[in-house]
Amino acid sequence: MSENIVLIDGEIIPEDEAFVSVKDRGYNFGDGVFEIVPVYNGRCFGILPHMNNLFDYVIQTKIPAVYTIEELVEFHELLLKKTGFKACEIYTQITRGYGTYGLQHPEKSLPSLMMFAMPADREMLKDKRVAGISLITEKDVRWQRCDINSLNRLPEIMAKQKACISNAFDALFVRDGKITETTEAGFFIFKDDILWTHPENNLIHKNITARLLRERLCPDLQLQIIEKAFDKEFVFNAEEAFICGPLCEFLPVVKIDRSFIGSGKPGLVSARLQKAYLDFVMLECPEK
Amino acid sequence: MSENIVLIDGEIIPEDEAFVSVKDRGYNFGDGVFEIVPVYNGRCFGILPHMNNLFDYVIQTKIPAVYTIEELVEFHELLLKKTGFKACEIYTQITRGYGTYGLQHPEKSLPSLMMFAMPADREMLKDKRVAGISLITEKDVRWQRCDINSLNRLPEIMAKQKACISNAFDALFVRDGKITETTEAGFFIFKDDILWTHPENNLIHKNITARLLRERLCPDLQLQIIEKAFDKEFVFNAEEAFICGPLCEFLPVVKIDRSFIGSGKPGLVSARLQKAYLDFVMLECPEK
Repeated sequence: MSENIVLIDGEIIPEDEAFVSVKDRGYNFGDGVFEIVPVYNGRCFGILPHMNNLFDYVIQTKIPAVYTIEELVEFHELLLKKTGFKACEIYTQITRGYGTYGLQHPEKSLPSLMMFAMPADREMLKDKRVAGISLITEKDVRWQRCDINSLNRLPEIMAKQKACISNAFDALFVRDGKITETTEAGFFIFKDDILWTHPENNLIHKNITARLLRERLCPDLQLQIIEKAFDKEFVFNAEEAFICGPLCEFLPVVKIDRSFIGSGKPGLVSARLQKAYLDFVMLECPEK
Repeated sequence: MSENIVLIDGEIIPEDEAFVSVKDRGYNFGDGVFEIVPVYNGRCFGILPHMNNLFDYVIQTKIPAVYTIEELVEFHELLLKKTGFKACEIYTQITRGYGTYGLQHPEKSLPSLMMFAMPADREMLKDKRVAGISLITEKDVRWQRCDINSLNRLPEIMAKQKACISNAFDALFVRDGKITETTEAGFFIFKDDILWTHPENNLIHKNITARLLRERLCPDLQLQIIEKAFDKEFVFNAEEAFICGPLCEFLPVVKIDRSFIGSGKPGLVSARLQKAYLDFVMLECPEK
């Protein structure tokens, strides 16, 4: 068992021997896509919807698909077996591969697949859930196809780094005055018994956890959800706010920029959702 | 002399031995910047303004600078000597380097420098100059920091590929109804004795050739230039249109989507500018 391994084109190799050509289009153009699957009790959670998303990105960017979903599922299991990780995230990226330099697609190219597992620090998240997190708002300068998980992540890096040096958990993007999402999760508020969030469109990532919230947790908990863009002022009139996504699960937001949300303490709705989410996850990924 | 070499962190190596870690942030996030310098008669043209741009991008993205401009100039000369190329383009990219996966900057990282020379097909450009080129318009979905030459180039790839399969030379980006530029060059029209182009701001690339046009060629040729965004309708009332940049030089545009510009033939102004530009280049880069 070893942490320092990666899976390249189906083969497990030590990370310090894992290299790619400097002419891989992933390296020159970020010409590729990615997806991250969370793992609980040594089992992938929601791998099929995640892989469906990945295939959608590959189609959108016209990268020839060379692996089947079954093979990708098998590679996830191989990584879990080799690392021995029980609680982790499995990262998968597919680039268009090596090609003569130029924006135009090469006549022929063989996509490069790279995967690895990273331990998930869910204890840190528990602490954050108790204290609540703070966000900074940042102008959303990203491209207008955020629904593709591309390897073009510089705007997110710039925003996340600004959040880090501001001692905030993450940056909350604002486009044309409306809140979209954070660099890595969806953003929700609770106000007058209703959950509000940005509609799922080209301006935000496809978020499997948010979809589960809409389609399963909200009906179960009899919560109403409205998908409509709103501004920062609207947030400050909310009772509570939280972010959600496959990596952070549900995390209460208590402060944005210099202002507190609601009571300034983690809210009950996000706590209920976190519990319902984890119950659901544990049903799907029971201890072995 | 060999074409198939690259320069990595100052060392010349064969391209088929040039690899980078799969955890280089250039490969995972497109977390890096690039610049391309054109070469005439074995001499770099405008290397200092190009390298100044590169340093500006590095500063904007907070990538630690590890090379001086003098070293980068030396690396350009080394590549010219080793390849023996007289007419080419030298590509330079700097990424933030290897780091533990995550959007946040690694605590420590050593930037990766990669450079190579590619032959420039200026004869093909001459033919295009005689016939004129056609463009397709495409929604400009790029991020709002196009003034940084980042390695996040998927929107340009998608647009360029669409142009290629449409049998057009390139795609002309339109943002909020206004024309910005093509995927690789600035866009200009000539109308009522005035040149029009998009203002140099965060929505277009820093274009060394366009700057030379404004600061040197226009005064020399007594041409007036207005930097103001305009729409597609405005273009169809122009007498001529052209694109310009360090790679394509000046290229007349005769058709956009299904409509011809002006007479539908290459215009006189772009031809005059091309001649003046090449005269200037030849003064700076005389035959050895």
